[in-house]
Amino acid sequence: MANSPSGDSMLDRLVRILDAFDQHTPSMSVLALARRAQIPKATMYRLLDEMVSHGLLSRGKDGQVTLGLRLWELANRSAATQGLRKAALPFMEDINALLGQNTQLSLLHEDEVLIIERLSRPGSVVNQASVAGRMPVHRTSMGMALLAFSRPEAIHGFLERHRELMLATHPNFRAEMAEIRRNGFASMDGYIDEETTGVAAPILDLQGYALAVLSVVVPRGSATLPAAALALRTAARGISRALGYAADA
Amino acid sequence: MANSPSGDSMLDRLVRILDAFDQHTPSMSVLALARRAQIPKATMYRLLDEMVSHGLLSRGKDGQVTLGLRLWELANRSAATQGLRKAALPFMEDINALLGQNTQLSLLHEDEVLIIERLSRPGSVVNQASVAGRMPVHRTSMGMALLAFSRPEAIHGFLERHRELMLATHPNFRAEMAEIRRNGFASMDGYIDEETTGVAAPILDLQGYALAVLSVVVPRGSATLPAAALALRTAARGISRALGYAADA
Repeated sequence: MANSPSGDSMLDRLVRILDAFDQHTPSMSVLALARRAQIPKATMYRLLDEMVSHGLLSRGKDGQVTLGLRLWELANRSAATQGLRKAALPFMEDINALLGQNTQLSLLHEDEVLIIERLSRPGSVVNQASVAGRMPVHRTSMGMALLAFSRPEAIHGFLERHRELMLATHPNFRAEMAEIRRNGFASMDGYIDEETTGVAAPILDLQGYALAVLSVVVPRGSATLPAAALALRTAARGISRALGYAADA
Repeated sequence: MANSPSGDSMLDRLVRILDAFDQHTPSMSVLALARRAQIPKATMYRLLDEMVSHGLLSRGKDGQVTLGLRLWELANRSAATQGLRKAALPFMEDINALLGQNTQLSLLHEDEVLIIERLSRPGSVVNQASVAGRMPVHRTSMGMALLAFSRPEAIHGFLERHRELMLATHPNFRAEMAEIRRNGFASMDGYIDEETTGVAAPILDLQGYALAVLSVVVPRGSATLPAAALALRTAARGISRALGYAADA
């Protein structure tokens, strides 16, 4: 359908245009957008008009292009993540207030950690996560907790696709997975900031597999890590229950 | 570009497909989707495959179609609303905790109230707002506060487009607008539930126009309404300041 001479479809181009925007580059000129999305200038101008008229993009008085509010509305009002967010937010507020650290809700998506929600706290330690941002599985407590509590075939598939990286960074991968499952949480030294440690507890379904993970970042070497892990596990069980999954004994 | 025989473009169809999903219908069969989006069945099957491969739609084991996580990610990671949400969330938590009622953050979009964020509270009064949901301007305190604190030409334009409805429901429209501006908040009896009253205070920019509105729903006739309004105005000023707008005296 609607393929350009170069063979990419309208949807390919549309997704490349939306993908050109991220948290570091929320707005750009039309020419920069054409360059980032690898779309010929003339085509970009035509697409821009049509996307602006549908509210998928917005063009400011200064000519800068941003994502449109209508796109946000369409993507959010029935998002699969809304139910999870709604159930998790009160518990995230509790963790945020009691531990005084940034609190994240994430899930595994396309072999990466996707941040669904984040509550931040003035004075909490540095933390690079942002809503709808992605983080690597092998470098984060979130990723390792999500992986450890995945179905065996999903863990196997992940390892097949990333064997070299995982075994280089986690030489005792299977033992580590087993330990995370035994402990009920994962902890890992900071991915960006080495002075921090991430702690993550899974939100489990009835079969004991992770739907998502709740995490905080604490100062490295903090004596409060075991307490933080226990608080996270408590909140994660509350979220499971709020979602209709009774926490098992 | 890429027009079908019926003359609607690929983007027209794409937006109709995304628009078919809402909070009440987050998933549906392919045939129901084709019907709701007014797209011929064969075209729908082809589009579905392409949209699923791009992660814009997702197809479950039961054949039900939902919006894809990739769409959510693309729309959220650089959304114009993220800065506002981030600045507002700590203040929304304060209001939510102190007043013990659902707290909403909304803005005016295409002549309707668009809910950007919402914190709910167990035990708070009934409230129909949901994230990315829309509410009518003339029936909500959010809408009336947003309108009263709009630029004069925007109020004029809104009234031109909705004169009959506004004057039928708000016979003293201009006096009411002036009163809301004088009070610094709007209140209105519940839109869905008559036993409730909405209270809304604007988050103002440097010129004194509303960027957004903060609101709660309280039991109707509650003696705490003036206190709730003052708390909302206080929090709304904090949000303005967090966004870089110094609240004026």
